[in-house]
Amino acid sequence: MATAPSISYSITIRLEVPSGGSAVSELTTTVERTGGIVTALDVTASGAEALRIDLTCAASDTDHAALIVSALEAISDVKVEKVSDRTFLMHLGGVIETATKHPLRNRDDLSMIYTPGVARICMAIAADKEDARRLTVKRNSVAVVSDGSAVLGLGNIGPHAAMPVMEGKAALFKGFADIDAWPICLDTQDVDQIVETVAAISPGFAGINLEDISAPRCFEIEARLRERLDIPVFHDDQHGTAVVVLAALRNALKVVGKDIGTARIVLAGAGAAGTAVLKVLMHAGAKHVVVCDVQGVVHQGREGLDESLQWIADHTNADGLTGTLREALPGADVFIGVSAPNLLNAQDVEAMADDAIVFALANPDPEIDPAIARQHARVVATGRSDYPNQINNVLAFPGIFRGLLDAQSHGIGMDILLAAAEAIAGSVTADELNANYIVPSVFHADVHKRVAAAVRKAAEAADSTH
Amino acid sequence: MATAPSISYSITIRLEVPSGGSAVSELTTTVERTGGIVTALDVTASGAEALRIDLTCAASDTDHAALIVSALEAISDVKVEKVSDRTFLMHLGGVIETATKHPLRNRDDLSMIYTPGVARICMAIAADKEDARRLTVKRNSVAVVSDGSAVLGLGNIGPHAAMPVMEGKAALFKGFADIDAWPICLDTQDVDQIVETVAAISPGFAGINLEDISAPRCFEIEARLRERLDIPVFHDDQHGTAVVVLAALRNALKVVGKDIGTARIVLAGAGAAGTAVLKVLMHAGAKHVVVCDVQGVVHQGREGLDESLQWIADHTNADGLTGTLREALPGADVFIGVSAPNLLNAQDVEAMADDAIVFALANPDPEIDPAIARQHARVVATGRSDYPNQINNVLAFPGIFRGLLDAQSHGIGMDILLAAAEAIAGSVTADELNANYIVPSVFHADVHKRVAAAVRKAAEAADSTH
Repeated sequence: MATAPSISYSITIRLEVPSGGSAVSELTTTVERTGGIVTALDVTASGAEALRIDLTCAASDTDHAALIVSALEAISDVKVEKVSDRTFLMHLGGVIETATKHPLRNRDDLSMIYTPGVARICMAIAADKEDARRLTVKRNSVAVVSDGSAVLGLGNIGPHAAMPVMEGKAALFKGFADIDAWPICLDTQDVDQIVETVAAISPGFAGINLEDISAPRCFEIEARLRERLDIPVFHDDQHGTAVVVLAALRNALKVVGKDIGTARIVLAGAGAAGTAVLKVLMHAGAKHVVVCDVQGVVHQGREGLDESLQWIADHTNADGLTGTLREALPGADVFIGVSAPNLLNAQDVEAMADDAIVFALANPDPEIDPAIARQHARVVATGRSDYPNQINNVLAFPGIFRGLLDAQSHGIGMDILLAAAEAIAGSVTADELNANYIVPSVFHADVHKRVAAAVRKAAEAADSTH
Repeated sequence: MATAPSISYSITIRLEVPSGGSAVSELTTTVERTGGIVTALDVTASGAEALRIDLTCAASDTDHAALIVSALEAISDVKVEKVSDRTFLMHLGGVIETATKHPLRNRDDLSMIYTPGVARICMAIAADKEDARRLTVKRNSVAVVSDGSAVLGLGNIGPHAAMPVMEGKAALFKGFADIDAWPICLDTQDVDQIVETVAAISPGFAGINLEDISAPRCFEIEARLRERLDIPVFHDDQHGTAVVVLAALRNALKVVGKDIGTARIVLAGAGAAGTAVLKVLMHAGAKHVVVCDVQGVVHQGREGLDESLQWIADHTNADGLTGTLREALPGADVFIGVSAPNLLNAQDVEAMADDAIVFALANPDPEIDPAIARQHARVVATGRSDYPNQINNVLAFPGIFRGLLDAQSHGIGMDILLAAAEAIAGSVTADELNANYIVPSVFHADVHKRVAAAVRKAAEAADSTH
């Protein structure tokens, strides 16, 4: 699947070009001939002899960017002086910072923000530690925690290399839900040590967002932290994905007029995301699910099932299907892939039931090219931003945590996830709903607020039943 | 020692007062008669019958504030509606927050700050993890870590109650040195667990500021973390205090025309701060130091010395003095107290050498009332903001960490502390220097920048000798 030029691979090339002559006119055509897209051409200095030009263009990837630069260098009289990468420039020194809420101008300010005044705030919290949720940044603060073991699709790149993702996520928390999140990247991949570390730093946070921790370790880490802490613990790769998949499936089923309780669903992927999607779908009423992993259909007779796969075998595939993913697909109403690129072809989708729904969510390369899937399926969704129906966690996590913090929730349960999914699905009005618009944009005016309100309500209801 | 009314105990009292009559005129006099200071009187609503007045005043402490409110209530026709505490209002929801450095308006922003663009930043750091100091918030970020075991003078109040101090400190880091610090309060007081936790979260930070951790645990924690981490670890209660004491002593000695190498110094307090002060003074050339703790003078013959006290016995008190603090003081040139309130009286100071220097730093109540000490000593300093010569850590830690971050320092040694002390001392010009001005204000225009520059230079020199 060819990748289109993207702003995320945007480079600015500083060029020196003779003032006279035709070199300038060749710049744009050269970039476009090479497959790039010129987004800006600024003359930043002009003299009798030469012009200095900053040319900004979008490329498909790093190799493509290099190709564009070479093509420009090859124009006679054009000199390439410096190539800057806009994404790198944006991340220089990081994308988040701290800010003080009050000015610090004089002794009076200091005596209230810090000593001696702060001592009274400490004493109030010492008398009732729940007051930390009122009188400190804990009220609005989430730790974005990763061990760097499964970062994006990049694998086990370690805690330092995971920082840009956790920091970007913190920026999204602030931008979409006004949450003060801080990236915490751990120099350990040992389950016990991760649990101990997160528990140890938990007093200053009102929520823990686990991120990019590989399966099956992520299940145990989350379960043990939930058991131990009095604040919500949420592994976004699992539950964020699951919530948005459920929201999208709700609307997709509406489009094709099918019911979740009777739909036959084939789920490819039994890792962190797949397992969470399965559980949320079952909680929402799905009854006929078959799960496949790299070894094919998960069934009770399969050997070497670990604890998580055994649970799946026990709770899905009532008909006892065996064989490959491909063999499980004929007649299915829904395919959901959170697995690997290019597993399916046109014939596979054609073999599904009429009005099939295909969510091919492997990133960046889906289980099947969505353009091909669309030839036979009625509704197609991917994880990509350059096709309709992007299944994007960003739809879920900001509003979910906003709602949890507003409710001062001590935990997070399945009902809260369902409420979030309903709120996302409900952000698409009946008039708007169609096969190419089953989920709102992450920039939808209300979606994060709607999710927050729904989650807050569900969290308060859950807390009141304790 | 009586405490003066302070803005840090500032309250706003909402009152209803008849529009006619004399009640209004009694408000200010009543507050002042009760010992408070009126800082504002705002009529926030006015009607034919009644006025609503917000009266803001400074009190000495909580009991005094209550007394003022009662006195106002006792005025006939005056109704007290609501009392708000300005310091509490300031800390509602915390005093720091996060901010995004770039707007998050559309898909382009998202694709650079987060996925897919962020993946390239991750890969760059995966190739060279030192790039995290360039491409993430690590570049400018310090963890302010406490276990809540020795918070201010409040004792072991735990991690939740410690949050306001750590958060206030983070606000000071930002306000004085543009550092992005985040409060990390630990739900453990076990030395091993603290070391493991701080080591585990260290990848995302370029410095660790340990704070309010009780002695002797703080020594081992700091030593083990320094050994283990490739970023500077700094226990402010020890070294911040030591740096400012040395700076103040340098200037005080100049005022009295004595030399650090020949001065007889009595140091009261052998805890975290005392031990650090001792080591910095010795490194700066002090040769005649006697240390006292609650059991009196530390000497080689004393029984039951722990590791830290044994080190002190081995390296100080060459004359083998024994007995009490009081017995050690006659003839001393310098007294430095980081111990307990009201240990000394006028006679004790009188018994010191001529032109004596007294640093009575116990907080909030000094080892001796500074007004009494001043009768016999030439230079007196305290930790209090309501007397001249305040020895305040805030003079040191912002600039020290700014310098360390700018140097991308991997550690912090004694030379760096000395450089910081020299920079603070040097911020007081020869013209300005006198017995009542031996250290600059924390709001001094340049002091933090001077400290940062001196520390950066020292850190770069130290790194280049590795």
